Amino acid sequence: MDKVRMGVIGLGAQGGFYAGFLAEGKVGNTVLAAICDTDPSKKAVAEENYPGVPFYTDHIELLESGEVDAVVTCVPHYLHPQMGIDALARNIHALVEKPAGVYTRQVEELNAFAQARPALTFGIVFNQRMNPLYRKLKEIIDNGEIGGIRRTNWIITNWWRPQAYYDSSAWRATWAGEGGGVLVNQAPHQLDLLQWICGMPQKVYSNLKYGYQRNIAVEDEVTALFDYGNGATGVFITCTHDVIGTDRLEILGDKGKIVVEGSKKMTVTRLNRSEAEMNAAMSWADAMKLFMGQSAEPAWTEEVLEFESVWGAQHIGVFENFSANILDKTPLVAPGTEGIRGVGLANAIHLSSFLGKEVELPVDGDLYYGELQKRIAEEQSC
Amino acid sequence: MDKVRMGVIGLGAQGGFYAGFLAEGKVGNTVLAAICDTDPSKKAVAEENYPGVPFYTDHIELLESGEVDAVVTCVPHYLHPQMGIDALARNIHALVEKPAGVYTRQVEELNAFAQARPALTFGIVFNQRMNPLYRKLKEIIDNGEIGGIRRTNWIITNWWRPQAYYDSSAWRATWAGEGGGVLVNQAPHQLDLLQWICGMPQKVYSNLKYGYQRNIAVEDEVTALFDYGNGATGVFITCTHDVIGTDRLEILGDKGKIVVEGSKKMTVTRLNRSEAEMNAAMSWADAMKLFMGQSAEPAWTEEVLEFESVWGAQHIGVFENFSANILDKTPLVAPGTEGIRGVGLANAIHLSSFLGKEVELPVDGDLYYGELQKRIAEEQSC
Repeated sequence: MDKVRMGVIGLGAQGGFYAGFLAEGKVGNTVLAAICDTDPSKKAVAEENYPGVPFYTDHIELLESGEVDAVVTCVPHYLHPQMGIDALARNIHALVEKPAGVYTRQVEELNAFAQARPALTFGIVFNQRMNPLYRKLKEIIDNGEIGGIRRTNWIITNWWRPQAYYDSSAWRATWAGEGGGVLVNQAPHQLDLLQWICGMPQKVYSNLKYGYQRNIAVEDEVTALFDYGNGATGVFITCTHDVIGTDRLEILGDKGKIVVEGSKKMTVTRLNRSEAEMNAAMSWADAMKLFMGQSAEPAWTEEVLEFESVWGAQHIGVFENFSANILDKTPLVAPGTEGIRGVGLANAIHLSSFLGKEVELPVDGDLYYGELQKRIAEEQSC
Repeated sequence: MDKVRMGVIGLGAQGGFYAGFLAEGKVGNTVLAAICDTDPSKKAVAEENYPGVPFYTDHIELLESGEVDAVVTCVPHYLHPQMGIDALARNIHALVEKPAGVYTRQVEELNAFAQARPALTFGIVFNQRMNPLYRKLKEIIDNGEIGGIRRTNWIITNWWRPQAYYDSSAWRATWAGEGGGVLVNQAPHQLDLLQWICGMPQKVYSNLKYGYQRNIAVEDEVTALFDYGNGATGVFITCTHDVIGTDRLEILGDKGKIVVEGSKKMTVTRLNRSEAEMNAAMSWADAMKLFMGQSAEPAWTEEVLEFESVWGAQHIGVFENFSANILDKTPLVAPGTEGIRGVGLANAIHLSSFLGKEVELPVDGDLYYGELQKRIAEEQSC
């Protein structure tokens, strides 16, 4: 095999985007080999845009057709785990869309299934892990350049969605259809980046607002407070009603601080001595001199890095990397099994709000599942 | 009376600063009339720096000397309420230092005492209320220029204090001596500004770290989550171990957003239509055009205001305003009775951490007092 034959399951906005760049040959090691959508009317769309590419309305038929080596699952969140299992069970490599699932129990099943089949490649579309800025940020943190993390803080509110967006499909922003709001649909990339770069918290407390500025059952406003268990804390804020939008990530470490603005500009401040050393060595008079700019030596250096984001490049990068893993065992940047972390984090944030108290991670999967079912039942009785 | 004769009680760093600008005639309507410090060795300091100004070691003697019309109380936090009461009881106008006290019960006593004596002026040194930036910010919010508030967020961590600072006095950063850490000593100005500009929350949840990066009994790391009761939320973060320091306040409203950086630069974004109107009117396709910069009309305007901060000017302004209230009933910018709000907020943040759950405001004063006494007893048994 020199090129992976990829099947796209679900020809909505995302599936169409993937089919498009695959058909244009933008992923060097991958070809568009088949398309599936349960809506038969999509067949005409597929034939017009991707002539000669086989079309299926049943994903099992596609998986058993012999025409694909791998599939990507561009279907509603709830279906990701089962689609992944269906593929792996037929020796088809699986690239699942984010989130890996709605609740951890179903993602655990998928992960166990995948781990039992190590010869198959199992990836997840965390395209932001391909963003050069976040790759550089992870490298700086992993290198210990700003020392141990003391605090994380991400305000990510540039997901403005008018009511018309929510009204465009009956499943949107419902417990039964999506299993949540901004946490499940818009924020999974940042939840993943945060844990990828800074690790998982041990405890979570949250304040969520359901249908605050939108006529929806699920959350459109999120404030979550993380406790990493070693003294470090974090805050994660997201919403879908801030038309101006803020995207600001600050990470404080023992040896410095990083501030990322707009996912484009990264300011890295590196202390010349660690804060702990400065604390032990400096008198209060010296500290005051430092603040008044009267110190003999600067206490830190500042580096500003600017990044340009090219639309589509990250997704193409995920497909390249996924297929390279199939072809020559190139390590995956986003292994599918890591999808559970963001799902667990989102579940913990929901659960804390449901229960009105701090909850521990890993989240109690049965408790979360039960609470989710209650909300689905309430929603359906309305 | 054409000039208020001011007595300074407590000749430490802050009292010395006030005595200095009063002696230099920097407050046009106020003269330095007497000084008090319980430490007799301060007499020589006073005589050298402020020749001819009477010195007392007992504040009651100063209050009854007939030499002062008003006093400012530059003494440990716990003593502010009693000193205020002592002054007012002797028909002396009282300007208390922040915080108004350590726990609300004692501040309630002070407020009740002052309210029963409306002819006397009772102020508090919230000098940041004189900061032109925060005055402008309050005006913009009060005018409704960014509409109803949806979210507040203040990271104020530029209070770096090395261990040497804490070790400089036995009372520092102890429950018995200060009644808390960064919340009681460094952050009261921001707690006051936040409530002055955005109102008081109804509920508070917090995660505090005690002696996290310093060898102290009290908190050096604070994350507080506010719920304003109308759907609006807020986050307040402060600490004393961030040598680089962040001071960033973001306020999201229905009609815009304000971001204040470094207490110097204010970016005001005003929506041309309120977010609620945009939400009701816009299709998802139009919203996407907006984000891609393809809209016919801009959705907002941005104004950047830069402010210069002149050291000391704010404190001088507080004294001018306080004396003007005595002399001609000029309204107080910082009435003493408002000091309880910041104390209540700090108490609620502490109490939530003590109890491990969300607490309501106004805080239960007896419960807080009991919890504080427990910590004082523990500290003293060590």
